[in-house]
Amino acid sequence: MRLTPKRFERFVQAREFEICFAGAEANTAVSLANFGIDAYMVSAVPATEIGQACLNYVRQFGVNTDYVLRRGKRLGVFYLESGASQRSSKVIYDRAHSGITEVEPGQINWDEVFAGKQWFHWSGITPALSDSLAATTREACLAARRHGLTVSCDLNYRRTLWPPEKARAVMTELMPLVDVLIANEEHSALVLGVGPKDADLHPGPLEIERYKELANALHQRFNFQYVAITMREGLSASENGWSCLLSDKTNCYLSQKYRIWVVDRVGAGDAFSGGLIYGFLTGMSSQETVEFAAAAACLKHSIHGDFNHVSKAEVDALRAGEGSGRIQR
Amino acid sequence: MRLTPKRFERFVQAREFEICFAGAEANTAVSLANFGIDAYMVSAVPATEIGQACLNYVRQFGVNTDYVLRRGKRLGVFYLESGASQRSSKVIYDRAHSGITEVEPGQINWDEVFAGKQWFHWSGITPALSDSLAATTREACLAARRHGLTVSCDLNYRRTLWPPEKARAVMTELMPLVDVLIANEEHSALVLGVGPKDADLHPGPLEIERYKELANALHQRFNFQYVAITMREGLSASENGWSCLLSDKTNCYLSQKYRIWVVDRVGAGDAFSGGLIYGFLTGMSSQETVEFAAAAACLKHSIHGDFNHVSKAEVDALRAGEGSGRIQR
Amino acid sequence: MRLTPKRFERFVQAREFEICFAGAEANTAVSLANFGIDAYMVSAVPATEIGQACLNYVRQFGVNTDYVLRRGKRLGVFYLESGASQRSSKVIYDRAHSGITEVEPGQINWDEVFAGKQWFHWSGITPALSDSLAATTREACLAARRHGLTVSCDLNYRRTLWPPEKARAVMTELMPLVDVLIANEEHSALVLGVGPKDADLHPGPLEIERYKELANALHQRFNFQYVAITMREGLSASENGWSCLLSDKTNCYLSQKYRIWVVDRVGAGDAFSGGLIYGFLTGMSSQETVEFAAAAACLKHSIHGDFNHVSKAEVDALRAGEGSGRIQR
Amino acid sequence: MRLTPKRFERFVQAREFEICFAGAEANTAVSLANFGIDAYMVSAVPATEIGQACLNYVRQFGVNTDYVLRRGKRLGVFYLESGASQRSSKVIYDRAHSGITEVEPGQINWDEVFAGKQWFHWSGITPALSDSLAATTREACLAARRHGLTVSCDLNYRRTLWPPEKARAVMTELMPLVDVLIANEEHSALVLGVGPKDADLHPGPLEIERYKELANALHQRFNFQYVAITMREGLSASENGWSCLLSDKTNCYLSQKYRIWVVDRVGAGDAFSGGLIYGFLTGMSSQETVEFAAAAACLKHSIHGDFNHVSKAEVDALRAGEGSGRIQR
Amino acid sequence: MRLTPKRFERFVQAREFEICFAGAEANTAVSLANFGIDAYMVSAVPATEIGQACLNYVRQFGVNTDYVLRRGKRLGVFYLESGASQRSSKVIYDRAHSGITEVEPGQINWDEVFAGKQWFHWSGITPALSDSLAATTREACLAARRHGLTVSCDLNYRRTLWPPEKARAVMTELMPLVDVLIANEEHSALVLGVGPKDADLHPGPLEIERYKELANALHQRFNFQYVAITMREGLSASENGWSCLLSDKTNCYLSQKYRIWVVDRVGAGDAFSGGLIYGFLTGMSSQETVEFAAAAACLKHSIHGDFNHVSKAEVDALRAGEGSGRIQR
Amino acid sequence: MRLTPKRFERFVQAREFEICFAGAEANTAVSLANFGIDAYMVSAVPATEIGQACLNYVRQFGVNTDYVLRRGKRLGVFYLESGASQRSSKVIYDRAHSGITEVEPGQINWDEVFAGKQWFHWSGITPALSDSLAATTREACLAARRHGLTVSCDLNYRRTLWPPEKARAVMTELMPLVDVLIANEEHSALVLGVGPKDADLHPGPLEIERYKELANALHQRFNFQYVAITMREGLSASENGWSCLLSDKTNCYLSQKYRIWVVDRVGAGDAFSGGLIYGFLTGMSSQETVEFAAAAACLKHSIHGDFNHVSKAEVDALRAGEGSGRIQR
Repeated sequence: MRLTPKRFERFVQAREFEICFAGAEANTAVSLANFGIDAYMVSAVPATEIGQACLNYVRQFGVNTDYVLRRGKRLGVFYLESGASQRSSKVIYDRAHSGITEVEPGQINWDEVFAGKQWFHWSGITPALSDSLAATTREACLAARRHGLTVSCDLNYRRTLWPPEKARAVMTELMPLVDVLIANEEHSALVLGVGPKDADLHPGPLEIERYKELANALHQRFNFQYVAITMREGLSASENGWSCLLSDKTNCYLSQKYRIWVVDRVGAGDAFSGGLIYGFLTGMSSQETVEFAAAAACLKHSIHGDFNHVSKAEVDALRAGEGSGRIQR
Repeated sequence: MRLTPKRFERFVQAREFEICFAGAEANTAVSLANFGIDAYMVSAVPATEIGQACLNYVRQFGVNTDYVLRRGKRLGVFYLESGASQRSSKVIYDRAHSGITEVEPGQINWDEVFAGKQWFHWSGITPALSDSLAATTREACLAARRHGLTVSCDLNYRRTLWPPEKARAVMTELMPLVDVLIANEEHSALVLGVGPKDADLHPGPLEIERYKELANALHQRFNFQYVAITMREGLSASENGWSCLLSDKTNCYLSQKYRIWVVDRVGAGDAFSGGLIYGFLTGMSSQETVEFAAAAACLKHSIHGDFNHVSKAEVDALRAGEGSGRIQR
Repeated sequence: MRLTPKRFERFVQAREFEICFAGAEANTAVSLANFGIDAYMVSAVPATEIGQACLNYVRQFGVNTDYVLRRGKRLGVFYLESGASQRSSKVIYDRAHSGITEVEPGQINWDEVFAGKQWFHWSGITPALSDSLAATTREACLAARRHGLTVSCDLNYRRTLWPPEKARAVMTELMPLVDVLIANEEHSALVLGVGPKDADLHPGPLEIERYKELANALHQRFNFQYVAITMREGLSASENGWSCLLSDKTNCYLSQKYRIWVVDRVGAGDAFSGGLIYGFLTGMSSQETVEFAAAAACLKHSIHGDFNHVSKAEVDALRAGEGSGRIQR
Repeated sequence: MRLTPKRFERFVQAREFEICFAGAEANTAVSLANFGIDAYMVSAVPATEIGQACLNYVRQFGVNTDYVLRRGKRLGVFYLESGASQRSSKVIYDRAHSGITEVEPGQINWDEVFAGKQWFHWSGITPALSDSLAATTREACLAARRHGLTVSCDLNYRRTLWPPEKARAVMTELMPLVDVLIANEEHSALVLGVGPKDADLHPGPLEIERYKELANALHQRFNFQYVAITMREGLSASENGWSCLLSDKTNCYLSQKYRIWVVDRVGAGDAFSGGLIYGFLTGMSSQETVEFAAAAACLKHSIHGDFNHVSKAEVDALRAGEGSGRIQR
Repeated sequence: MRLTPKRFERFVQAREFEICFAGAEANTAVSLANFGIDAYMVSAVPATEIGQACLNYVRQFGVNTDYVLRRGKRLGVFYLESGASQRSSKVIYDRAHSGITEVEPGQINWDEVFAGKQWFHWSGITPALSDSLAATTREACLAARRHGLTVSCDLNYRRTLWPPEKARAVMTELMPLVDVLIANEEHSALVLGVGPKDADLHPGPLEIERYKELANALHQRFNFQYVAITMREGLSASENGWSCLLSDKTNCYLSQKYRIWVVDRVGAGDAFSGGLIYGFLTGMSSQETVEFAAAAACLKHSIHGDFNHVSKAEVDALRAGEGSGRIQR
Repeated sequence: MRLTPKRFERFVQAREFEICFAGAEANTAVSLANFGIDAYMVSAVPATEIGQACLNYVRQFGVNTDYVLRRGKRLGVFYLESGASQRSSKVIYDRAHSGITEVEPGQINWDEVFAGKQWFHWSGITPALSDSLAATTREACLAARRHGLTVSCDLNYRRTLWPPEKARAVMTELMPLVDVLIANEEHSALVLGVGPKDADLHPGPLEIERYKELANALHQRFNFQYVAITMREGLSASENGWSCLLSDKTNCYLSQKYRIWVVDRVGAGDAFSGGLIYGFLTGMSSQETVEFAAAAACLKHSIHGDFNHVSKAEVDALRAGEGSGRIQR
């Protein structure tokens, strides 16, 4: 559950929180459901009304929640304070001891889950939550491979969940099971040790060449089929530059670049993952795929909450140049 | 009635709608009332509390509603989703079968309505709603001419209300009854067949000459006294360029151009109409008139709802250069 | 008490007001409390629940309210309408006859208030409220000097509270009791007669030299220890340029300049005062002080309400270049 | 302007106020307009946007505001905290120095106001606000009599506006100009010295005889044409008993009694006045009139704000026994 | 879609509407889903975002929406004003021309819909919406019978949708296809001509015998398997008595009676239907069934919106006497 | 932190939560501060903005928070769903692993805390949270005794925090350190084994004698100076009967009984504790004390949130019979 003070209020001012339910993988699943793909969430929530509210929230957007376990005592929570101008957004995690952290290998019937499916997506937040979840993630990747699914992973490093050393140890071991890696420069360096150590800390004009080299280095190190890199230019909390890169083992495909006025940027990476998977699943070319994914994530910045409530038609329109804000009527 | 999810929410997220009452001509009337002009709305709303709420809403801003018929079973509704950044605003109309669509020639006593009045303004949305309304619009224009009123028309084409062919047939016939035409490039081309077919679809740096030619062509075709053209540059749903042009049969007058951060752009065209009519009614020069109307419409973009809640003093201050956002205290 | 329609609503649209409690000196005190300084408010509020609500509001942020008198019949109120784009924010004061205006010399035990304290800050709004308050301000300055406190004053001219002539007469007499003057160009000219008469009315690219000369002229005229000048470039109600200058008798120190997207600019000057006093109290260099104060005030623009809810760490981060809006998590 | 924390919040909890505009006479005027009577408000509000908001608010409900002066510096305000169960509602007045208090005899053209009108209603709050308003009230009553209007007065004593002695002196002098007196037992005793001194302080089962005697005493003392008395049984802030009595010089007419669950009881007395005047204006019998007025005021308790948003049909339905809460659909 | 002003506001006061999606059959389906039954909605909504929002809203509560057609131009709307105390709730329907009204026999594959299902429930509102819907309802009943489903019908007469004569003609013809009839006294008389003509108009102490006779008469006339009658005592819009009766051909089973403080009574009848069907589906005795259904509907009165968000455990607890409001913690 | 859906919404409907900060002892402290007593909270909250928001919230109401430790990773949370009519309120605790649960003996300097203080109050929720907190509670009681403070304890049993056996073991050991016990019948039986096992489960007309016997039994078993018992009659979630009993070793003092319409009953027991302690601290007689405490708690039911925002004057007025809901103006 995400708890957000009203637009631009700081935590100490809040007297009410807007709530939504979110999570890196759930966000990606909703993106896919919005594009018309049968998407499933595999997770665990407590058998309370709060857990039920979470399930209801996710399934309203068409994601199948049949594989969500009902267990544990609490639902993980995070507090989000929306930034503006020079003031950054702030996230305070309260996810320890949530039901999902107690899931262990053997509790989920992956053969049932993966039967007849095509794609398995996970993010680096999941193994960060507990050792048993890291082991379960490994179990899932192996089962997905066994069933012939493509496996994608968004590195999604969160320093408050685990230190870089721990993340690197766990994630490095999981990478050989991943077909499509999604990352940004900073996380790649911190988690996989590939890329400049101080990446993204001094944002400036993007140097595309640096990102291409990064993609190549990742290919060489882990032999991914695809590497996708998101490139955000933080002008302020209110204005961002946004573009993306997709690389197969031989070529690099670059999306157009968007200058964005930010409503809510949380979940933009997951929207990118959703767009990417959609492109792959529907047989788009690599160039089309990266454009579709970048445009989908661009639109996410204009939407409250973690979920990317946009249709394929809306993403296509933006790809086709309809970003001028004409009223659709 | 306009139903709007809270700022930046998409329809599928909404759990409440902000409501206001609106309509192209009502919007223009409120603008004029705010400038101190006696303005009247002629319309029809159902004899329910929802119809009453509409009347109350309009008359609170000083517009006389004595000529509004109480009839029909429903009040027309539209849903507005506010866009941001690359995501467009979206309007879903639910206006069919509303009370106003059933109004027929002979039901409104135009002689009583127009006695002692100076100006009659209507928009292309009205004849689009039903054939009987188109006939009633014609009846009104003829009566207005008979009483010596100036007649202005804002083309206001809406593709979901009627196809271009129907619009062109109906509107072309009405144009000879119009003294002052208000349009943008796209609507002029679609409805009147004057101007480039693909206008406004690829917004870029404005080419003023093209707009001057458009005005001339409209003058030649329909022999208007004045043609006013609004020129919007859609950088995104959040940022717009805005300027306007007024042309009499011999000269073209251009307003300054504003770069606008958009709160709510719906109704900006009507605010322009209101400013234009105010300029004419109060004897401003053509240059003053187009500057006043452009500034009024510029301010509308900063205001929630369709109505332009600004005073003459505020428009004058902006015309005089006070757009720097100094706090008035 | 400040009464504000919801974001971007005009007064005539409002059906509810967001409320907060504010005041130039209270705003500065909250800034200091947020930085960890023991701050006290000296004021008077009525002995009603509305007065109590004011005290509660201020003390929740750590400001000591023990020296606030409970007297008078009403709490001063102001109405604030938030502007956007070309539409200015608007303030309507309703402060006459409030409890604080009736305070007279002799009613506050300044010896008790100032015992063991280091700094006394007041703004030009206070003596503007009544003659007895002007006399009490003088009494306070003298007592503060007697106890060895540094005295700072923010000119804060408000034309609806007193005419320039009255302001100049009262303030000129108080200036010799002030060590640190905080002002902008317009107020300096209007209140102290130092600077161009038409300052700030035609904002354009800043000419730093003009501001340095202003600081020098103020030093020469009143022999201040420090003069601090805030330099705002109003691009619109939504976008501002912001930088500041601090001058001792020999040198001028200039802060970096921020381009700000404005959430709520009211109180930014007070946030600057708070940052400035914090710098002096903690022994920062002049350059560090002006940078700290400018950054603190920059962040204020992103926060609803008059109070600057930011920590020292957040100001330091911005000074260090962290204005790119990275999510803190 | 009335400022109300959200339902059941105490002042010290409030972070926003719901606003409406209200006033004893305005409330009565809105009641009458809702019943289809041409009603006019005569008052004064400042020439600010806050004053304009007040006018807009009142005229939206069909009350003519053409006779409202625009003058003075502030609009009177009151804060209302809604009670519940054993906790009383609380009103804090902040009306001193408002524009209306400065109105003096000679400023309003009563001959113009009263030409062609039938009824003049005022309440005891008006002369309480200032001596000049008391004189103006006298001036109005005399003019009303001159023009043949019926004059009604609701005693409406407010102890925080004036002490009983002052009220008695002023009101006793005005009573000979009043045709229809509206009062409750407590106010009658305090203001006119007619009735038990400790009335209403110990509410218990109503003793109708006591109220009849009160009406008789008032008739004898001031020779009114009609005396109307409201009888409230306060079981708690949430539950009230409510009935009313109307007496001409010879007979007493009693309404049925309602047991009410209270949403907002402020303005119920004014709703009673509105119903009473409506009954007289439309030629109802005395019994019908008191029933209509009592039922109208009963319904007011179920409506937020001071205004009684009910139609004649709704009052008639309640009179006819439709208080069972059947959904109207 | 249901549009509701905030609690206790009248339509003319509303500036925002709370929205939910509702419908007699959908309400019943959600009740069943909450009890753990696989429930399906068969309907039609337009292929717009408003239609999608409706589907999302319903499916979040676990109702399967796979059989909902996407067609038509508008979604039916109703406006609901919540009453209180003596003021009734008010519903304004705006359902004409909605997508569902255009559904015709042959468009829904009932064989697919009913395959493997046990129960079909519909309400009298559906055939009231259009002739083609009445025919489609007949088609559905016949198909349901063919597939061996039990058919239940809630009379649900709405005078603004059709006159009694039309209702009687259509519904009388459908009754032979119904196994379980749900009705109240008034609707039975109006629609089926069974029962007193002026039923429910003069609510007073319930006379159970009268209701038993009504049930018997309905059995005799239409040969239902079960007749269920809801008995509401309207003390006011805020307080209701509530009890229910179930009758098979030989016996009558009466529920306990609840005295209810009403939050939102709309949908209570549908909650009763849901409870009834649940009792039948799970093999409860007739007495248990009527108690379960009555308790379920009792709880509905305490919940905003049309849907009855209660679990089987909560209904069982109330049946078992847990209506004392102990906090569950 | 308490998270509450808007009035009467169920958890599955909520899209925003109202927040306040609460806790049995904090609630009691705020009561005392509102009565003018110097009250201190001793607790632990994390060093995040969420922890700071908690401190700010408490100190705004005048409670001293200087002794609150800043430690731990999370702030305990509970979700509260407000009931109505037959639907109970529901609390879901999420307090495990909060900062306070990690506090251990030796970490708080009780000698500093208790120096110069008179009273120490704690509730049974505190030792329920962790073994180390139970030990710390014991440490505190011993220190309080050493410093001559009176020690009061509210049993406050919560079954979701610990099982009855554990509670009984821990609490029985702490009772000899308690001077004033506050309990209800059910908790006394469950936690201390004194009283009927099935107490309060079948609420009916109160039998005072049973409660007197309970008080006597508690005195005999634990030798308390005072035993206070709250007696709630749950008619529904919306209506409660409320009265209280205080017993010294020889006599029983009974408060009047209130029939309450419930706004928010959470915290009523703590409001009773606050009133009780206030009575003792200010030397009221036992009868006055129980009346004051009962009236204070009665008023709490009418206030949103856990805190009892009432003044001594308001409690005195209710004790004096002013529960009739007269508007205070």
